[in-house]
Amino acid sequence: MPKFSTATAGSTAEPPWTITADDVHAAAARLAGAVPNTPFLHSRTLSTVTGAEIFVKFENHQFTASFKDRGALNRLLALTDAQRAAGVIAVSAGNHAQGVAYHAQRLGIPAVIVMPVNTPFVKVNNTRTLGARVDLAGETVAESMPRARTIMEREGLTFIHPYDDPLIMAGQGTVALEMLAEQPTLTCLVVPVGGGGLIGGVTVAARALRPDIEVVGVQTEPYAAMVDALAGRPFVPGGQTVAEGIAVKAPGASARQILAHHGVDVLVVGESAIEQAINLYVQVEKTVAEGAGAASLAAVLTNRQRFRGKRVGVVLSGGNIDPRTLASVILRGLMRDGRLGTLSVEASDVPGQLAAVASIIAAHDGNVIELAHNRMIPTMSARCTDLSFTVETRGGAHLREIAQALRDAGYRVWHVSGEEAD
Amino acid sequence: MPKFSTATAGSTAEPPWTITADDVHAAAARLAGAVPNTPFLHSRTLSTVTGAEIFVKFENHQFTASFKDRGALNRLLALTDAQRAAGVIAVSAGNHAQGVAYHAQRLGIPAVIVMPVNTPFVKVNNTRTLGARVDLAGETVAESMPRARTIMEREGLTFIHPYDDPLIMAGQGTVALEMLAEQPTLTCLVVPVGGGGLIGGVTVAARALRPDIEVVGVQTEPYAAMVDALAGRPFVPGGQTVAEGIAVKAPGASARQILAHHGVDVLVVGESAIEQAINLYVQVEKTVAEGAGAASLAAVLTNRQRFRGKRVGVVLSGGNIDPRTLASVILRGLMRDGRLGTLSVEASDVPGQLAAVASIIAAHDGNVIELAHNRMIPTMSARCTDLSFTVETRGGAHLREIAQALRDAGYRVWHVSGEEAD
Repeated sequence: MPKFSTATAGSTAEPPWTITADDVHAAAARLAGAVPNTPFLHSRTLSTVTGAEIFVKFENHQFTASFKDRGALNRLLALTDAQRAAGVIAVSAGNHAQGVAYHAQRLGIPAVIVMPVNTPFVKVNNTRTLGARVDLAGETVAESMPRARTIMEREGLTFIHPYDDPLIMAGQGTVALEMLAEQPTLTCLVVPVGGGGLIGGVTVAARALRPDIEVVGVQTEPYAAMVDALAGRPFVPGGQTVAEGIAVKAPGASARQILAHHGVDVLVVGESAIEQAINLYVQVEKTVAEGAGAASLAAVLTNRQRFRGKRVGVVLSGGNIDPRTLASVILRGLMRDGRLGTLSVEASDVPGQLAAVASIIAAHDGNVIELAHNRMIPTMSARCTDLSFTVETRGGAHLREIAQALRDAGYRVWHVSGEEAD
Repeated sequence: MPKFSTATAGSTAEPPWTITADDVHAAAARLAGAVPNTPFLHSRTLSTVTGAEIFVKFENHQFTASFKDRGALNRLLALTDAQRAAGVIAVSAGNHAQGVAYHAQRLGIPAVIVMPVNTPFVKVNNTRTLGARVDLAGETVAESMPRARTIMEREGLTFIHPYDDPLIMAGQGTVALEMLAEQPTLTCLVVPVGGGGLIGGVTVAARALRPDIEVVGVQTEPYAAMVDALAGRPFVPGGQTVAEGIAVKAPGASARQILAHHGVDVLVVGESAIEQAINLYVQVEKTVAEGAGAASLAAVLTNRQRFRGKRVGVVLSGGNIDPRTLASVILRGLMRDGRLGTLSVEASDVPGQLAAVASIIAAHDGNVIELAHNRMIPTMSARCTDLSFTVETRGGAHLREIAQALRDAGYRVWHVSGEEAD
């Protein structure tokens, strides 16, 4: 993302600048009453599962359902009267857009949000509902930037950067003050890392209060750009991610400097660990996390030894997951656990076969939820058909038990999806 | 459910007994420290959507993810030493099982839970993980009862009724004390009704503190047994429900008497309104509600005129929804909103047709997520095939726009599922 963004009132320093704990405390004072102190709750079950004492900071309970409200408001409150009157502009397809739009509307500041043309309609609509003027341009956020620059210059707007701005970072750091005020004995904070605004602010604020506290960042495998930046490597994106909220190619230089200065580790988690964390949040905590929001829990789940016995504050940074993606993650999780599985059975193409196979599955307490016939499989006899049953079971062992019962009855079960295919 | 349940220590009265506000306050004192005061948060968006000021009581944040913990613990704490040593027994396929098992384990009381044989394995397993001995018997909860009676008598256990017990009711009523302590200016409480323990306790507690407060019960259409009981009608179950937590055939006589005495209205909501409320909780509040837990919001959504301008405390009573059901409710919601829809297109069975139709859908920004071919439709020419596209869209209008574009290109679009089929 171009760097013209940081040259704005209240944050005129060229990167890398830094912030102090005082900046975060000042932000907290400014945000009081307008940004809620979200629940921060101990989770007995997640503690049992991980072997660490887990406290979850529910930033998905912010009004726009992510921590972005904190930085956006702190930045907007620093505008001069003239800047407020002229208005602001931001580029975002996600949480930053909603955070800026919402607080600009609250403060009566005109806001333009430039979004890529393929932004899901729901997000466009949400941002419009929050009173912003939405301008669609470019295929990606980076490609939206020239359009944003044009509008900004033409209309004299102030650019609100999503992370690389000291006021954004200080605002986002207030989450650490709330966590430590409520649980002063935390020994570790785990924070997702995209551009680095959140972890930058959290690190500065937490270390000032508790110099011994551990701060751990988390990135997703395809977008470990901050990890590469800290190691001095160039970053090449590695593919699609369910955690689009932390899919940032160019993390902030100032955040990188803060992490390097404080010796903050940034862990990398796999996509399937993130999906597993989303499912744990749904099934155990009864809460909805977006991919980026679940990354911190995923890091604890996949690094149990590292966190064992610690008192860990996990930032569930946001809950804006596309409903269809959420449904798909839930069903994929059931597939992975073997609680949903597909048994493909080769059967003679004569009457009664479906009933016979279905009876065996029923006798073993499998619940058939989908069925497909396929007669076009060249490796099977033309006199046979493939019956592909999607079955709900008690888990992988139960699925294998059903498959075995079918084999015992003389059927060829030539494919089993689910926990462990065999 | 047989009534042998109420003749137990601390609750020896024959129904209809009643409870007082003092019983609820005493329960609150007993539960302090062991049952959390769950978050009670204002929802700006749900307030905008409904036209009432909505405050949500997140009982899905209880340890076993429902309000049942409150009554179970209050009941268990009233056992004599001899009763504690002998142990307790309950019959439940749901939240009551987990509430009793969890608190019995905490207090070192042996617990037997009798569950119907077809109880989902996850629930059996959760209850076992909480330390209870699970006994599977009968096809339904009612059919489990004889087995429970046998074990109870043989082992000298105390039966813990799920709702028809003054200590259960008083414990469950503590939710009202928390809501009114945090928001003293509430004018209305909306509470799901199954057996009536929750609303009985809530009514007694709330009316003692605030004689003018309105309490509204909610049942689901297929199981409006309390509504029938209040009207003196016999109850006949009306079919399947997504709100199995309030699917109770025989509501408590004492609860009925309390509701009649206090003039509490019980509203009936449809199944689709409950699904809509589950989806609003997921998409707006980023929280997971089971069907019974979403019923109170469903009542406000479908009776807007009645609640307009009121300050309404809505009890989200539990979050234990089967993950596959949740995924299905989410996808059905998208179908209803037209954000997922199926377009069945009649195409000549020659090369290039799929590409041609897919191109038209793509040109109108539809995202194809599933495709089925069907050549077996008798009303179509044998030279034609049916291409059935499941498409992700921006909503019903967008889906119809795509259908029209296909028709304009000469295709017969013979079925559209989604918001408004045409």
